Amino acid sequence: MRVSTATPLQNLLTDIAGVAVGHATDLALGSGVTAVVFDRPVIASGSVLGGAPGGRDTALLDPSMTVETVDAFVLSGGSAFGLDAAGGVQAGLRGIGRGLSVGTTRVPIVPQAILMDLLNGGNKDWGRHSPYRDMGLQAFEAARSGNFALGSVGAGTGATTGTVKGGLGSASAVTRAGHRVAALVVANALGSALIGDGPHFWAAPFEQDREFGGLGMPTCFDTGMRLKGVNMTATTIGIVVTDAALTKTQAHRLSLLAHDGLARAVLPAHLPFDGDTMFGAATAEKPVRDPTELMEILHMATLVSARAIARGVYEATTLPFESAQAAWRDRFPG
Amino acid sequence: MRVSTATPLQNLLTDIAGVAVGHATDLALGSGVTAVVFDRPVIASGSVLGGAPGGRDTALLDPSMTVETVDAFVLSGGSAFGLDAAGGVQAGLRGIGRGLSVGTTRVPIVPQAILMDLLNGGNKDWGRHSPYRDMGLQAFEAARSGNFALGSVGAGTGATTGTVKGGLGSASAVTRAGHRVAALVVANALGSALIGDGPHFWAAPFEQDREFGGLGMPTCFDTGMRLKGVNMTATTIGIVVTDAALTKTQAHRLSLLAHDGLARAVLPAHLPFDGDTMFGAATAEKPVRDPTELMEILHMATLVSARAIARGVYEATTLPFESAQAAWRDRFPG
Repeated sequence: MRVSTATPLQNLLTDIAGVAVGHATDLALGSGVTAVVFDRPVIASGSVLGGAPGGRDTALLDPSMTVETVDAFVLSGGSAFGLDAAGGVQAGLRGIGRGLSVGTTRVPIVPQAILMDLLNGGNKDWGRHSPYRDMGLQAFEAARSGNFALGSVGAGTGATTGTVKGGLGSASAVTRAGHRVAALVVANALGSALIGDGPHFWAAPFEQDREFGGLGMPTCFDTGMRLKGVNMTATTIGIVVTDAALTKTQAHRLSLLAHDGLARAVLPAHLPFDGDTMFGAATAEKPVRDPTELMEILHMATLVSARAIARGVYEATTLPFESAQAAWRDRFPG
Repeated sequence: MRVSTATPLQNLLTDIAGVAVGHATDLALGSGVTAVVFDRPVIASGSVLGGAPGGRDTALLDPSMTVETVDAFVLSGGSAFGLDAAGGVQAGLRGIGRGLSVGTTRVPIVPQAILMDLLNGGNKDWGRHSPYRDMGLQAFEAARSGNFALGSVGAGTGATTGTVKGGLGSASAVTRAGHRVAALVVANALGSALIGDGPHFWAAPFEQDREFGGLGMPTCFDTGMRLKGVNMTATTIGIVVTDAALTKTQAHRLSLLAHDGLARAVLPAHLPFDGDTMFGAATAEKPVRDPTELMEILHMATLVSARAIARGVYEATTLPFESAQAAWRDRFPG
């Protein structure tokens, strides 16, 4: 599944060599799982800045903790029920002999973040066994390098925001020194990626090649708060990966700069009912020669995260429920 | 020094009743201190998201720690030498009988954050005793409600950014429910508050009443990184205060939403050489009746912080050194 660095950029997380992405999508459930699988363990960290997070194996991502690498990341819907999904990905990794070597066994390290999509109108009557473990394995088996779908797929299936349907987006960039930086983010924010009640995206200053419609900025700004409504169920979750050789501490900073991208793309972000979580990882293909190169990698983490959020909302489609929140494309047709 | 809530808004931190601000400014030193003094202990917290912070008595601000209130906050230049300043403010508070009651004594709680301005061209040859403790006491004695100066004053005296002189700014807002939210921030970022090489501010969408020139947004966006140069000495520090009755945990969230304002106003922010620190406090004059009211207070924390940063840069003046970084007003005259 390895991607050569000579591969043309597709503006996706898989522009980073060695990264595979797979989705499991259930439109009737109105939810899904996305697995990001690395072809070998990568330096990784993460940070939780929302007030209502749900995660699995995230404590080890703190730079002070011992384990420095992960095998995969999982993003899913299902709120805390969705935390079963990483178990499915671990089963898949175990099946191919992957995992942190511990004595005579291997333990796949698969941190996960979830988003809250339980109240989006989908059929959540799954009885005693949530569907998320099986969807985790399904997403793992679907994971590949190259192109993958955006919008109402995988963990973005059930996502909503303060104004229009949320979704899963991705974006990539290359620094002047040639480091690649790419993000995959699912926007399920309590706030909004759009400015006021119009179609313009907060992330517009960072847009590349009309990747989310090319509307630019409006001429005046309605900065009044737009929230999702009385349930206030939210969370934006994502992953930023670079091919640069970062330390775990630098990967932690990468995740913090991704939160700045969230702050740029969604207003307001990081609320008490958002579980906003960002992971950062480095495949270490390319050395970092000086501090300025590192700063630009971090700068790009902010930009690609903001762009990925706008793209996820732009690519989303309305779910097939009567009460489903309208997608951007249906809210602003033509 | 109490301010009635009927006082007309001046777009300053002192729009919150019970808040006094005082500066100590030394242009030859190219540095200074700002004290924010509350007329009674206020619920407070804070968060450090930059990678190179300097602070004093900040650990107790974590919501898990016992002490819930503070008497004052201090912002200063001087890098870690500047941490003497809180001692001066404590001396002033002790002189008027203020402080946390502990048995038969009182301990003034004065968390502080510093910024790095040691390499800005000012005379830093202070020998064995830094001037910061005395400047702390001077700032305390100067503290008053009502109007205070912005720009190259107090902790903003020596501030610089990636493109033009930094400075101390302030802004305030009122939510629909009538809660006041105000910020005082010193922009000394490694990155830039301006878009590309032009005069436009990243915070422009949030600008009120031409408070930083009324330029609006440019028609195209140069999102390339602008950094301060080889020394990479930085840090943006600030305080957001509301008159709402927040818990310590909610004051912590207030400080995180202030960081989102920083992320909106400065690009890039939160770098490994930034010590970005935001404090949050609540004077508890006015109850919060439902979650939506709280969300709007937090939303406003993002907006007033972004506006305060732009205002600090806009109001800055060039220091009287040959090598001093030009202020916005000198870089973009007329």
